[in-house]
Amino acid sequence: MRLTLIGAGPGDPELITLKGIHALRSADVVLYDALVNEALLEYAPPVAERVFVGKRRGSKSYEQEEINAMIVLLARQFGHVVRLKGGDPFVFGRGMEEMRHAQEHGIETAYIPGISSAIAAPGLAGIPVTLRGASRSFWTMTATTDTGELNPEIATAAATDATLVLLMGLSKIGEIAAIYAGLGKNDLPVAVIQDASLPTQTVVTGCVRDIESRAHQWHPIRPAVVVIGGVAGSEFAELKN
Amino acid sequence: MRLTLIGAGPGDPELITLKGIHALRSADVVLYDALVNEALLEYAPPVAERVFVGKRRGSKSYEQEEINAMIVLLARQFGHVVRLKGGDPFVFGRGMEEMRHAQEHGIETAYIPGISSAIAAPGLAGIPVTLRGASRSFWTMTATTDTGELNPEIATAAATDATLVLLMGLSKIGEIAAIYAGLGKNDLPVAVIQDASLPTQTVVTGCVRDIESRAHQWHPIRPAVVVIGGVAGSEFAELKN
Repeated sequence: MRLTLIGAGPGDPELITLKGIHALRSADVVLYDALVNEALLEYAPPVAERVFVGKRRGSKSYEQEEINAMIVLLARQFGHVVRLKGGDPFVFGRGMEEMRHAQEHGIETAYIPGISSAIAAPGLAGIPVTLRGASRSFWTMTATTDTGELNPEIATAAATDATLVLLMGLSKIGEIAAIYAGLGKNDLPVAVIQDASLPTQTVVTGCVRDIESRAHQWHPIRPAVVVIGGVAGSEFAELKN
Repeated sequence: MRLTLIGAGPGDPELITLKGIHALRSADVVLYDALVNEALLEYAPPVAERVFVGKRRGSKSYEQEEINAMIVLLARQFGHVVRLKGGDPFVFGRGMEEMRHAQEHGIETAYIPGISSAIAAPGLAGIPVTLRGASRSFWTMTATTDTGELNPEIATAAATDATLVLLMGLSKIGEIAAIYAGLGKNDLPVAVIQDASLPTQTVVTGCVRDIESRAHQWHPIRPAVVVIGGVAGSEFAELKN
């Protein structure tokens, strides 16, 4: 009776760790999210149950409490529950909530880190989150709060020299750019990366002044990572848009 | 004639990606750092050259410029150079400098992300860098600047609500705690994780007030990750000290 929380990485099925694959091979049940590449389910034994618990447009998604309860029930019924989450389970993944709930119900837990798109999405677009002479730090957050408001920490971050990495930032790109513009940072480079690591990866680069119009053509269906800072102006950033 | 920059992860040889292993299998030369687990070199073909370019105490380490030049020479002589770096190559890894230098010399480059200890070291100690109700963001930096001074961004970060993740922070732990104490944050939780993911992993937890004395017993030889913020007070953090 155990739960293994695994980071599935940003999307490319080869960006899972060897340790993650080994855990999948001993799964009795796999619970997976919408952002997880379903090719990874092939590593689980054929008899293992595969349960989709992610959000899909137009259909009701599971509440966190339902997922927590399901993990406990399934662990008791089947044994080894593997929870596959996109990116890393502890980066805005609510992984710790699932882990704690399982522990409170006497279930042994393990965590296997994953490649977070916070670092990999910029990297795969040719943008290092840190670079000597351009950035000594990076600050990662979601663009919105739980209630859908603009994250107030963005205004704090905009006043610093940190590279800002925003997950799920595309729908608020205009408001975010306005904050930077208000600080006189109109020429600060900005990049938006969608579908990082997948064959459909797309990158738009610009600066605070023009990123909204450049990214305007995009339909913000798929999650995107927004990077703001000198590093996003790297001449090596891919220009695939 | 190509260069593949691979993130080797935090230390556990199973925390490399499948993609990283595939690239290693086609290496003609592997250049690796001190923080890379040498078990990973087994994936390279037996005939591949293995070149250690890291720092070791008591011996001169290679300058960045020497490594850059070596990559170009070896790619021309042997073909596929694999550069294995601890963690992720773009998180304080100077990976982009090597990549640019290679590109400027006509060498094709690729980047394969790795598990960064910025996220995985806290996670493996039971500390999620983000947690609903405790932290909506995390800010990652090194404790010192290139010249060995305390990173001035620490003071900026201490005034925010971000989880602060400091790489190589143990030697400055007293000065760092003093900054937080000066802001009245004496009871803010702090954790120090050394040798994350290895059998020798050690975790010390405390708060701003007492972390220096708690971590004092440690010899700061191996790199440590310092986490400061509410999430470090998680009741699930391992107490192995």
